[in-house]
This record gives sequence, structure tokens and C-alpha cells, in this order.
Amino acid sequence: HDTTSETQQGVASYYSDRFQGRTTASGEPFDQRALTAAHPTLPFGTKVLVTREDNGREVEVLINDRGPYAKGRIIDLSKRAAKELGMLQRGTVPVEISYVQ
Amino acid sequence: HDTTSETQQGVASYYSDRFQGRTTASGEPFDQRALTAAHPTLPFGTKVLVTREDNGREVEVLINDRGPYAKGRIIDLSKRAAKELGMLQRGTVPVEISYVQ
Repeated sequence: HDTTSETQQGVASYYSDRFQGRTTASGEPFDQRALTAAHPTLPFGTKVLVTREDNGREVEVLINDRGPYAKGRIIDLSKRAAKELGMLQRGTVPVEISYVQ
Repeated sequence: HDTTSETQQGVASYYSDRFQGRTTASGEPFDQRALTAAHPTLPFGTKVLVTREDNGREVEVLINDRGPYAKGRIIDLSKRAAKELGMLQRGTVPVEISYVQ
């Protein structure tokens, strides 16, 4: 079978605490402590490897929501995922995401 | 009766479109097109005058939600209110808020 990996470059941001416990587009409640993310189009449950383009730090997340909604953003991360990338202070970072569709 | 106006200085931000239509802490659905805002403690229905400290632009909003959740922020504005302050591009601006409790 075909397991070609695809990549995409852009800016990652992370969720506001305002969204904690709210229902995501997949129907799951959102949890800042889980390793999840929002992507505009990837199927829910897709595993995505997110790599910071400036320092190589990476984290793997599961897509369970739609978004981001701001221009130039390609993925919105949970706080835990953002913490693993060390981007909590900065808020947004350039990333490459890769996944198998 | 006592109508002393109080003021507070800090940083304003605005809501993500992710929150459109979601239920606010006051029970009202959130609407980016309305002139509303989130404040940590002011009673729901409080009228707040928000003034940009850098250029004097101002907008009046009604508090209908709790927040902000990020450090240093004192008020989260609807997109319409943020547009009236001309802060959509920038995202955050220093403001003074004033209200009658």
C-alpha cells in the first residue's frame, strides 16, 4: 500500500485556555494536557509530526479539531504540545508538519 | 448614589474565530460581530470604555464573558471591537479601560 509522507510549512500557534473542555470539531472534548492539534483538512486521528524550523525540536500530535483561523497558520497545538516545542512564551513558531495520508 | 469611574491599564487581545457561537460564561452565545468583551471580574452587563494608549482610539463594550487567560492581558475583545480599535493586524495593544461599578 501507499504510505507516502507529505509535508507542509507554515506557522504554528496554540490554543487559548478559554477552549479547555469545549467540544472540538471531532466531537471529543478539548484537553490542553493531551497531544492534539487542529488542522484545516487532515482527517481526525491523523498522526502529525511537528518540527520547529528554527531549532529542530519536535512533537507528535493527533488531529482532533479544525482550524487554525488566523492567516498564515497551518496548525493549532494543545498547550502540552506547545510546551514540548518550547513555544509557550513566544506564542507562534515556524514549523514543518509531516504526516502519512 | 456613587458613580465613581474606575480605570485599569494593561494589554487587550481579541477572540479567535474558534469561539464563534460558543457559549460564554454569561450563558450568551459569543458573537464576533457584537461589541462585547471578557474581563476576569467585572459583572456581566458592565459597560467598559476601552482606549488605546498609543493612539487614543476607543470603543465601548459590554462584558459578557470571563478571561483573558494569558499573562498581562486585562480584556479580550470581540473582533468587531478589535476592528474599531484598528488592532486586527497587530493582535494585542496597550489599553486603558474605564467603567462604573
